[in-house]
Amino acid sequence: MNRFNDLTDFSTDEIGSLLKLANRLERNPEPRALEGKVLSLLFLSPSLRTLASFQAGMSRLGGGSFVISPEMSIHGLETRPGIVMDGTAAEHVREAVPVIASYGDALGIRAFAERRSLEDDLTDREFESLASLVNVPLINMESAIQHPCQSLADWKTLNDLEIPAQGGRFVLSWAYHPRALPLAVPAATVQMAAQRGMDVVVLRPPGFELPEPIMEKARQIANETGGKVTETADRKEAMEDAHVIYAKSWSSTSHYGNRPGDQALREELVDWCIDEPWFDKARADCRFMHCLPVRRGVVVADRILDGPRSVVLQEAHNRMKVQMAVLHQMLKN
Amino acid sequence: MNRFNDLTDFSTDEIGSLLKLANRLERNPEPRALEGKVLSLLFLSPSLRTLASFQAGMSRLGGGSFVISPEMSIHGLETRPGIVMDGTAAEHVREAVPVIASYGDALGIRAFAERRSLEDDLTDREFESLASLVNVPLINMESAIQHPCQSLADWKTLNDLEIPAQGGRFVLSWAYHPRALPLAVPAATVQMAAQRGMDVVVLRPPGFELPEPIMEKARQIANETGGKVTETADRKEAMEDAHVIYAKSWSSTSHYGNRPGDQALREELVDWCIDEPWFDKARADCRFMHCLPVRRGVVVADRILDGPRSVVLQEAHNRMKVQMAVLHQMLKN
Amino acid sequence: MNRFNDLTDFSTDEIGSLLKLANRLERNPEPRALEGKVLSLLFLSPSLRTLASFQAGMSRLGGGSFVISPEMSIHGLETRPGIVMDGTAAEHVREAVPVIASYGDALGIRAFAERRSLEDDLTDREFESLASLVNVPLINMESAIQHPCQSLADWKTLNDLEIPAQGGRFVLSWAYHPRALPLAVPAATVQMAAQRGMDVVVLRPPGFELPEPIMEKARQIANETGGKVTETADRKEAMEDAHVIYAKSWSSTSHYGNRPGDQALREELVDWCIDEPWFDKARADCRFMHCLPVRRGVVVADRILDGPRSVVLQEAHNRMKVQMAVLHQMLKN
Repeated sequence: MNRFNDLTDFSTDEIGSLLKLANRLERNPEPRALEGKVLSLLFLSPSLRTLASFQAGMSRLGGGSFVISPEMSIHGLETRPGIVMDGTAAEHVREAVPVIASYGDALGIRAFAERRSLEDDLTDREFESLASLVNVPLINMESAIQHPCQSLADWKTLNDLEIPAQGGRFVLSWAYHPRALPLAVPAATVQMAAQRGMDVVVLRPPGFELPEPIMEKARQIANETGGKVTETADRKEAMEDAHVIYAKSWSSTSHYGNRPGDQALREELVDWCIDEPWFDKARADCRFMHCLPVRRGVVVADRILDGPRSVVLQEAHNRMKVQMAVLHQMLKN
Repeated sequence: MNRFNDLTDFSTDEIGSLLKLANRLERNPEPRALEGKVLSLLFLSPSLRTLASFQAGMSRLGGGSFVISPEMSIHGLETRPGIVMDGTAAEHVREAVPVIASYGDALGIRAFAERRSLEDDLTDREFESLASLVNVPLINMESAIQHPCQSLADWKTLNDLEIPAQGGRFVLSWAYHPRALPLAVPAATVQMAAQRGMDVVVLRPPGFELPEPIMEKARQIANETGGKVTETADRKEAMEDAHVIYAKSWSSTSHYGNRPGDQALREELVDWCIDEPWFDKARADCRFMHCLPVRRGVVVADRILDGPRSVVLQEAHNRMKVQMAVLHQMLKN
Repeated sequence: MNRFNDLTDFSTDEIGSLLKLANRLERNPEPRALEGKVLSLLFLSPSLRTLASFQAGMSRLGGGSFVISPEMSIHGLETRPGIVMDGTAAEHVREAVPVIASYGDALGIRAFAERRSLEDDLTDREFESLASLVNVPLINMESAIQHPCQSLADWKTLNDLEIPAQGGRFVLSWAYHPRALPLAVPAATVQMAAQRGMDVVVLRPPGFELPEPIMEKARQIANETGGKVTETADRKEAMEDAHVIYAKSWSSTSHYGNRPGDQALREELVDWCIDEPWFDKARADCRFMHCLPVRRGVVVADRILDGPRSVVLQEAHNRMKVQMAVLHQMLKN
């Protein structure tokens, strides 16, 4: 495997193999599998789970890792092409990225969306420009529009919980959050659930429709897998017979990159905090999923997060499990 | 071992075994003992020695570790229970701690005292509330009232120096410091020396008596071990025939959490800087101990710290040695 | 090897052996050579390449490492001797350095020049004062006047490119940079090229002559190796038949530590940006070297850095390779 960037680059069979490998490594640890191997980790955006789970995962396989973030260079990293660097930044990513990559056998990059241009973010312009500088196997640790590690962990969580692939009803719901957040998780999640063959409903208030290219890609995938992708602003309709609700906040598409516009729209939506009444029409054992970090009492009520519906800790733990499988497949001789 | 939090959870025999194990690992390194094992390190307060000694110790035993501190999450970690998270913090410890714990085979947590309520700090409320979120073996890397790694290292140092357990005179002395410092080290130290069966004297100026529950616990321990615990404000009396003086600054108990009150009391006490005259009545080879970091010329004179009495570097080095024994006992299959 | 501080501490044969070892470890990895060994890394100045390459190198040899920087201690590290520490800093390097050293089997220290006194920096006063506190093998990861890891990597790069040692023409050129930079890299580089036996030309504008002790040391080395060291302010003369130009900015010697004076001199020299016309009289395949980080469009034109002349990425990659050889020789039983 030379690139782990988008789950749809892999067939359902290939994903099944990765998840089997994750389970095998749990049952039969291989503490020397990657001895002498190194994973380079470049975080252009902050990280807790991703950093911890990758470092722990490499250690469990006998390899090592190192972490680089922009503040480690003198006065930060420049990303703009063709610029005369007479300002603050003393180093350009055009040097930093290939150098960091060259110290490892694989490189993970995290770079959040710039949220200046929706088109740029939908085509993952920044991440792809960094990726073009790399000639070792590359792992997307969250970019403007992708988060394949999260999606693979979520897929494993759905399997672990025996939530049906074909026919399982998966609600991706917008939730309130005081700030405009990136599209990576909702885009990756709707796509993952569609690829798993589920009956996917995107539940969102007016103004927070997901961009059409994301929805269109998800519908195409569903066509191939026997799944279904619909959208609605009606909670009751969405949640009917749901197996799982996956909560996430994201930016307004119509006001993308326009903070005051997004804010004005968002302010009216504080009641989009997932709580028990949401589950009225859902299956009795309907689960609550979230990629974390999550704002308690804002995105979701404490009683949901602390109650039996919540599987957010399993999702986070599965991050390490699936990433170990990716690393094993990528780096094992 | 499932929890390393308080030396008094362990019998003197168990502590003896840990110290023997520390010596054995020094003579006969076991560079594969913990292969594939991971130690999660969560620092809610800054660290130099603790971070370095734990990371080095895990490497020496063939395992790995990773470090998490609050600034790694987006906008820090919330600790207050039941709060509506519409402010700055984007993640709650209720999620962060169990997730971080789940990536490792054991978790170390450092969380300094909040110093708002003496009662809360004496019962280690904050650390215990974090600990309740963890279901892997847990190491206290310094909390409001405990510092078992430091105490075990100090115990080893006393053994290495062949300072008598029964009958050895151990003076824990308050020292001047411009700021009010936590009670963890003095509380853990008086208890450790009592548990080792020593003749313990707490030397402190008026207003800086240790809280009664700490003294009472230490006296009870001394009762069982044949040691003794007394207190005085008289330097000469305290230091008579002393084998060792252990210097440490701490907050005023009577003005706990009251910064100006503590400051007013403290300002008069700049002469509580340990220097050669303090040792007039002590044994000729009386040692100087301190947990570090130490302010030179403030807590202790340079000539003491740089002279033959000082064993502060040995204490710090023993941190790694004893922690390796704890990790080995906790994590070796 | 107990100290890796200055390439001239080693004979040409010894350097040849290190470079052979670097190549051998590339062909035949030894992922268990340093199992159970620990490298302590102390960065008193920021680092990206050095941190990443040392951590990766240790992992590739089966060892571990940990990183300490001043912000990890409470309120930073004090370096001044004999000071009464009643200010901000809570810990002195006199304790911190030996403690950190004692957790590892070797210690790397980075400490940039203070640029207050040229004499102090030329004698590496600060680094030597830190080094005197260490009793494990020590690696200079860049000090006021040395950067042996960079120089050994550059030597390997010159070998890899088959640039002649005897008779190869090596131009070390000053380049424009908005800020006054340390002398470590130019001093180490002119010395390395002289030690390799090359025909070394230092090209610099008036006011930016390298200090005489640096030039004198380089000339003496050249005397022994059959090399040559000259200096000029004339680009054409310097570049004639050059095999390689090594660009680097540095402080004005005549205004050392005097920021406004240096700035006034420097402002007139923005045309010292290496670009294609510089290579008019050079050999057709003349290479461009730089230690990184480099300011694009300021120190060097993008078309040079992105073109076939540039070997800056190879140099950076060779950092890891040669450091692995140093670590292997220093730490392998």
